[in-house]
Amino acid sequence: MFGRSYYCGEVAESAVGESVVLKGWVQRRRDLGGLIFIDLRDRSGVVQIVFNPDISKEALEVAEKVRNEYVLDVRGQVVKRDDSTVNPNIATGKIEVLVSDITVLNEAKTPPFMIEERTDAAEEIRLKYRYLDLRRPDMYSVFKLRSDITKTIRNFLDDEGFLDMETPILTKSTPEGARDYLVPSRVHAGEFFALPQSPQLFKQLLMVSGFDKYYQIARCFRDEDLRADRQPEFTQVDIEASFMSQEDIRAMMEKMMKKIMLVTKNIEIETPFPILKYDDAMARFGSDKPDTRFGMELNDVSHLVKDSGFKVFSGAVSSGGQVKAIVVKEVADQYSRKDIDALGEFAARYGAKGLAWMKVEEAAMKGPIAKFFSEAEQADLCEELSAQPGDLILFVADKSSVVADALGALRLKLGKDLQLIDESIYQFLWVVDWPLLEYDEEAGRYSAAHHPFTMPVREDIDKLETNPAEVKAQAYDLVLNGFELGGGSLRIFEKDIQEKMFKALGFSEDETKEKFGFLLEAFEYGTPPHGGIALGLDRMVMLLSGSSSLRDTIAFPKTASASDLLMKAPDVVSEQQLQELHLDLVQKKD
Amino acid sequence: MFGRSYYCGEVAESAVGESVVLKGWVQRRRDLGGLIFIDLRDRSGVVQIVFNPDISKEALEVAEKVRNEYVLDVRGQVVKRDDSTVNPNIATGKIEVLVSDITVLNEAKTPPFMIEERTDAAEEIRLKYRYLDLRRPDMYSVFKLRSDITKTIRNFLDDEGFLDMETPILTKSTPEGARDYLVPSRVHAGEFFALPQSPQLFKQLLMVSGFDKYYQIARCFRDEDLRADRQPEFTQVDIEASFMSQEDIRAMMEKMMKKIMLVTKNIEIETPFPILKYDDAMARFGSDKPDTRFGMELNDVSHLVKDSGFKVFSGAVSSGGQVKAIVVKEVADQYSRKDIDALGEFAARYGAKGLAWMKVEEAAMKGPIAKFFSEAEQADLCEELSAQPGDLILFVADKSSVVADALGALRLKLGKDLQLIDESIYQFLWVVDWPLLEYDEEAGRYSAAHHPFTMPVREDIDKLETNPAEVKAQAYDLVLNGFELGGGSLRIFEKDIQEKMFKALGFSEDETKEKFGFLLEAFEYGTPPHGGIALGLDRMVMLLSGSSSLRDTIAFPKTASASDLLMKAPDVVSEQQLQELHLDLVQKKD
Repeated sequence: MFGRSYYCGEVAESAVGESVVLKGWVQRRRDLGGLIFIDLRDRSGVVQIVFNPDISKEALEVAEKVRNEYVLDVRGQVVKRDDSTVNPNIATGKIEVLVSDITVLNEAKTPPFMIEERTDAAEEIRLKYRYLDLRRPDMYSVFKLRSDITKTIRNFLDDEGFLDMETPILTKSTPEGARDYLVPSRVHAGEFFALPQSPQLFKQLLMVSGFDKYYQIARCFRDEDLRADRQPEFTQVDIEASFMSQEDIRAMMEKMMKKIMLVTKNIEIETPFPILKYDDAMARFGSDKPDTRFGMELNDVSHLVKDSGFKVFSGAVSSGGQVKAIVVKEVADQYSRKDIDALGEFAARYGAKGLAWMKVEEAAMKGPIAKFFSEAEQADLCEELSAQPGDLILFVADKSSVVADALGALRLKLGKDLQLIDESIYQFLWVVDWPLLEYDEEAGRYSAAHHPFTMPVREDIDKLETNPAEVKAQAYDLVLNGFELGGGSLRIFEKDIQEKMFKALGFSEDETKEKFGFLLEAFEYGTPPHGGIALGLDRMVMLLSGSSSLRDTIAFPKTASASDLLMKAPDVVSEQQLQELHLDLVQKKD
Repeated sequence: MFGRSYYCGEVAESAVGESVVLKGWVQRRRDLGGLIFIDLRDRSGVVQIVFNPDISKEALEVAEKVRNEYVLDVRGQVVKRDDSTVNPNIATGKIEVLVSDITVLNEAKTPPFMIEERTDAAEEIRLKYRYLDLRRPDMYSVFKLRSDITKTIRNFLDDEGFLDMETPILTKSTPEGARDYLVPSRVHAGEFFALPQSPQLFKQLLMVSGFDKYYQIARCFRDEDLRADRQPEFTQVDIEASFMSQEDIRAMMEKMMKKIMLVTKNIEIETPFPILKYDDAMARFGSDKPDTRFGMELNDVSHLVKDSGFKVFSGAVSSGGQVKAIVVKEVADQYSRKDIDALGEFAARYGAKGLAWMKVEEAAMKGPIAKFFSEAEQADLCEELSAQPGDLILFVADKSSVVADALGALRLKLGKDLQLIDESIYQFLWVVDWPLLEYDEEAGRYSAAHHPFTMPVREDIDKLETNPAEVKAQAYDLVLNGFELGGGSLRIFEKDIQEKMFKALGFSEDETKEKFGFLLEAFEYGTPPHGGIALGLDRMVMLLSGSSSLRDTIAFPKTASASDLLMKAPDVVSEQQLQELHLDLVQKKD
């Protein structure tokens, strides 16, 4: 322990009688009947230290001057507390330390917020004084968990024969979908490095090198607008292996997650994980990362309503769209028309033009659209949806992507609102059989659903030229409780297939050569079949720690405008620095 | 093993009789007496596979078409080799595999250089085809060692209670001596992030947070001219702890190095390491990172020559400089005047205006300057230097820094040239009692010898204002075989001392506030005493693997002009990217 006898929170009953040295922060001071009691805190917890004039008048005098967050070095004897003063809420509650010597190692001003388990301090203040925010015990737990998770991952992958390898941060701009952070070169005027969005190409090159099994807990960078909960730099557990099948890789990841859950959470999870096809996930849950901890699945009722008198439904079906419904059980009397209108507004954010609804009653359906459906049609709907009296049925009619987005989001919202989700469950699952390409309406061309190096299903390769939308990828995403924990795939390792892929993505031959010539060349020198996966570490920590934000899993995060409020970054630089980098600033227009 | 029975190099004699599946690269094919022999290689080594028409005609026919570096999937039976064909040079030399099935997984062009243990390929070609260079077994060994070293470090530090924590890569420019890499912000026009030269401030803030024990295997960045053997991005083992003394930290590092040497090299090293004071290291070896695997120490002979007739010597002493000598044992007859002139030219590169010399003979000293010294003076010199007939004495007279640089470098060169160094020894040592500040002649002010956060020796704090050059630092460098392996110190944790330090460095109050206001503020909220160390991982791998260059320890290194020859980075970017970053390129002048 180097100069200390124990961490504060670990002074056990077995230490009674020992002379100890402790170091820590003043959590709280109480003066009581001529004695002073201090809760001394370090990362492990607190211990009560007592200043008694009969033990040391000098120590008591010093203690009179200490305030919250002072840093102390104390020496004293561990004694049992009276039964009446035992504190069952802390690990050290049965003992206290009678202090004979005290040194104030450093003083402290009153912090801008209390150092306590839960805080209601504004996030801006917490980020500005991050070093104080991190003193809070719940923050320490998150980073202890993070350290334990990475340790478990490393031990597991080491045992599986993976080599921990580093790849460059100063690298080349490659089109992986997001915007790159750039780093101007001083030596090469007018040229720039890019920070990697992932080590994808490097890890593939390491497979070309025959390294066989690579991993890295890798920092990645994306210069995106930080809507929602994103960070400009994030960490992924990056894994690549040669000669392994999709099934091999999935089995290995299941084994790893099982170990992580056991070691860090003491939870036994079941393997293998359920496997959902992408099409089924979208059809049943309206999501490619479904939360399957509760039901309320999407049901396609197009065939029942295609000829109905309700033109919104029949029209949607006849124009190639669909009508789907979710059944919200036993809530018909809880949801007023106004409540349902609010749900409609929510659905509208996901593109739905309207939210139709019916309430099931003993005799018939109720609601503004009920009249468009005959008794028989109503009965068929109820049977198809297993709807019972008291249930609320919500419908969206639109093209399939809008139906999925809107009803999928609505399902999740209702699941949370109605507390249908058992938050104690960790529900892992795989989503497989992804489409290889997505049509990007805006750009008017296909883009890669995962990335341009994903291996198509062998039988679909010819369709790359004839019907790209139909090509399936040998890709697999790991989903936990409705969050994408990671994505992986087998990779293209044959030059001609990679060239076809680039062509399907609309790259010209020149572009391909310019940007990926080195990769195509590498593929000519004996590249093994390979594949891998990347897991989002920040998100894993968030889900396993029960944190509500990625920012709580990163020691020094950035705000939504990509600023570091503590150090004040980014910041202006000197004219000389700009000159060395051959740059001018474009003047802002007023 | 997921689809394979063994790695190629690990098919043991105990596997004889087994049906196995192997995957790997064709190292070499030989056709002999109707059979085909292939050395199949993977990262673990090679195994001989045999194609025999009696086993499978089809397999033989496929084997006829394979060439070097093809990727194969083979199935067959492990058999013992005839005694006459046993190959004692490889681990699998007693067996071979009779192939019944073969699949060519990928083909290969002829590589631009042979994939073999040692290569004479030009480094430019090796870097351009790095994925092939990395296939060479000696490269694999280096990265296996690197992975093993980091694993050992992590296990050790985990056991010691250290938390593995990540700190930002997109951060703020701070003056740590070297030039920063900058990253323009898109969101904040005209502002820049800087890539960290080290996580120094973050790890100190984590101590303010009470994390107590932090480590990170951290990427660091310096935009320096890459003279000698430097890389723009490098990796350090970054360690910080609270409440530990200098001695605690050194003892812990010794324990860690002992474990690394034992686990990765199977070498028992002795601890504690020798401790040299900075002044003694400079005096005896002319270096702050002395290689003490051999003698030939520097000797101050100023007192013997200050009144001599040789004006170069007496003049140097009288003007405040010194005269020092090294004795090169038993080489007087090997070094001609021309050879010694060459040594003089070498010394001149380190600032020496001349290299004086004498050869010791039975009767007297020889050499151009011998005549300036009386018989008694010569005898005194020989006695002081323990010089014997046959020895060569080399002198440098100058101010002390030049004497140290020139004679120190000469000592190292001669140690190598004369093979005085036992390369099998790993000689660790500590250099302590560093000066806190160095006077920067060019800038006309003091700069930090380590960094501005190093704690001065307590008794010297007052001298910060009166005599900064005399202030010693609570700093310690770890040296291995003449290389700086790492540097550490206790840190300033009191606001007033930090302010004095910034003042001694010539920072104005405004500058201090602007750049380090957050740190000074943090120090006001109960900062514990803390300290740490950072070890250069790339260099450690270089020394432990016996590599001759840092580039051989980094999977994808940059060249001396900071370029990535494989991916071609840095590179030009689009006009749109520049616009988004609010930047213009300064046009190059013709």
